[in-house]
Amino acid sequence: MASSHLAGPVLVIGTGLLGTSVGLGLRAKGVPVYLSDVSPTAAGVAQDIGAGVLLEQRAIAPELVVIGAPPDVTANLVADALLAYPNATVVDIASVKGSILSAVLADERLSPAETSRYVGTHPMAGREKSGPAAARGELFTSMPWVICAHQGADPARVKVAESLAIDLGATMHRMSVTEHDQSVALISHFPQAASSMIASRLLNAEAHQLALAGNGLRDTTRIAASDEKLWIQIFSHNAQALVPILTGMKEDLDRLINTLSNPQGPGALLDLSQLMTEGNAGKARIPGKHGAPPQAFALVTVLVDDRPGQIAQLLADIGEAGINIEDLRMEHSAGHQVGMVDVSVVPGRRDELIDVLTTNGWKVAQ
Amino acid sequence: MASSHLAGPVLVIGTGLLGTSVGLGLRAKGVPVYLSDVSPTAAGVAQDIGAGVLLEQRAIAPELVVIGAPPDVTANLVADALLAYPNATVVDIASVKGSILSAVLADERLSPAETSRYVGTHPMAGREKSGPAAARGELFTSMPWVICAHQGADPARVKVAESLAIDLGATMHRMSVTEHDQSVALISHFPQAASSMIASRLLNAEAHQLALAGNGLRDTTRIAASDEKLWIQIFSHNAQALVPILTGMKEDLDRLINTLSNPQGPGALLDLSQLMTEGNAGKARIPGKHGAPPQAFALVTVLVDDRPGQIAQLLADIGEAGINIEDLRMEHSAGHQVGMVDVSVVPGRRDELIDVLTTNGWKVAQ
Repeated sequence: MASSHLAGPVLVIGTGLLGTSVGLGLRAKGVPVYLSDVSPTAAGVAQDIGAGVLLEQRAIAPELVVIGAPPDVTANLVADALLAYPNATVVDIASVKGSILSAVLADERLSPAETSRYVGTHPMAGREKSGPAAARGELFTSMPWVICAHQGADPARVKVAESLAIDLGATMHRMSVTEHDQSVALISHFPQAASSMIASRLLNAEAHQLALAGNGLRDTTRIAASDEKLWIQIFSHNAQALVPILTGMKEDLDRLINTLSNPQGPGALLDLSQLMTEGNAGKARIPGKHGAPPQAFALVTVLVDDRPGQIAQLLADIGEAGINIEDLRMEHSAGHQVGMVDVSVVPGRRDELIDVLTTNGWKVAQ
Repeated sequence: MASSHLAGPVLVIGTGLLGTSVGLGLRAKGVPVYLSDVSPTAAGVAQDIGAGVLLEQRAIAPELVVIGAPPDVTANLVADALLAYPNATVVDIASVKGSILSAVLADERLSPAETSRYVGTHPMAGREKSGPAAARGELFTSMPWVICAHQGADPARVKVAESLAIDLGATMHRMSVTEHDQSVALISHFPQAASSMIASRLLNAEAHQLALAGNGLRDTTRIAASDEKLWIQIFSHNAQALVPILTGMKEDLDRLINTLSNPQGPGALLDLSQLMTEGNAGKARIPGKHGAPPQAFALVTVLVDDRPGQIAQLLADIGEAGINIEDLRMEHSAGHQVGMVDVSVVPGRRDELIDVLTTNGWKVAQ
């Protein structure tokens, strides 16, 4: 697949978390990268950490321009780049695709020959931090990267966009903008909205209530800490795909409130059962790590002290036995120094793992 | 606090996950335990794994009876136990408290002297598995255990109930049944209902949509895999406390659907901003591990290969440097063999950790 790799130079316009990570990842592959941002500070930080060289007034002829900007300015930057670099492939990496494609195709400055050089993409990677200082070249490793070639896109340009994803170690997924927007509405934007709504209910909670918080609350609200400014735009740009999903949840919620307002009424228990079993079934459809079927791993719980080296020693003992850990989870509770660690392994190694741990003096909860 | 510990014998009625775990934990402390369950198989399993001795037809005079039964049969079992063991303290460990207390106080077989021996409690621990085979004596270690003494409870009986929580290593929280039911409605029952509703939306999802699932979806839907039969009862018994919270979410959801139905309308962006900022603020109120303020830990991301011993080696290197890991999280993506591990440490050790890792040849994403 040597022919699918980028030669460069690549121009990154917008050196936030994602754009700077693209620069870092490509520099690590030896691809020449130029950097530009409306904020000279952001571009300067990106250059300082090795993501490329400031574009400044240089006249360059990039093979590829990557627009790493918020959704609301992306279409305009794509059009500008198509006009400024008449031989370049131009991709964007924003989280919504339909609204941006529509705006690019509607831009009166652009001919079909020009828009044929545009390919919308979406690397599904991120961090809870933002900005160039949080960037890392490995951000995209093993993460999905959606390529949304529009009908008028030149196949050779699509290949360049795909090379970007491949060079950065991502997993490529090809789909239409509509398929993309509906997919991310369901698996990303909707959970974000729901998580924010769950966390909102805690605003007026009392301290004695929050002191009882466990992993259920922590997990369901983790992404409620996400960046406000970015998500406003994502919700706004993908509103059309989000509304039907939110409306589906609203129907469930209305029914649940109605049922719980008269919990002894006819059919109440059946309604509650349906809520839980549909949730069970929906959850079971999410693919596991390595694409494995959900819950394919066996879970072994170990009691550890909360002091340096305990978890290291635990995992060293497991590693020495040649057993691979598929997932690892620390159970939290406020105010304490002892904890549980849940270790997931393939089911065939479970008994062996328990033997190894017990032999090494670990307290295993079976 | 020697006087606060149980001498026993303790009778556990209901040998599911929690009842059997109580038995195992008390046996480990040397307390004599008897076991009873409507299912002879469940009681037999509990005895086989060391949780105590089958009660059978023995005439005993227990210090304490622990009712570990589903909410809908608990009040009746409490009343039966108060009558059968006239000197015993009787506690239940069900997840709802108000409905059970009301039923116990309303039981015409019981005098105030008898109900004064009843103390409702709620150990906030569990597993995704159920049944006696999943039990473990350490299940309650460091987890909250709520003690809900009612107004007519004998203080000496309350002390016995508290001894149970202390003996099993839990953190005690004293509150009224109303405070308890409102607290768990907010921090446990509501997130469960919301998570099930999020997961329900995946029932008809297409495979290409689910292939893009990331940690956001996985985290928000983890508890949607919970046991249907138990949760039907919890929702039903705590309906009164749940409805106002669900109604609050419904108002947010109605507003969000309305806003996204006209995302260019006046005030739309302000509405979306409010959703996110309220979520941010609510999330920030959840206490962290050791009761630390949320986000008090510094996060360092390390790239690892997915083969035996890699994570062990990573943590061994960290442990050798004497740095304590406060949390550890593996980032997932379907279909891949390389992953990121997020290591959380106290902020003062962050730079040292990065040094240690880099020196040992780890790829650290900064």
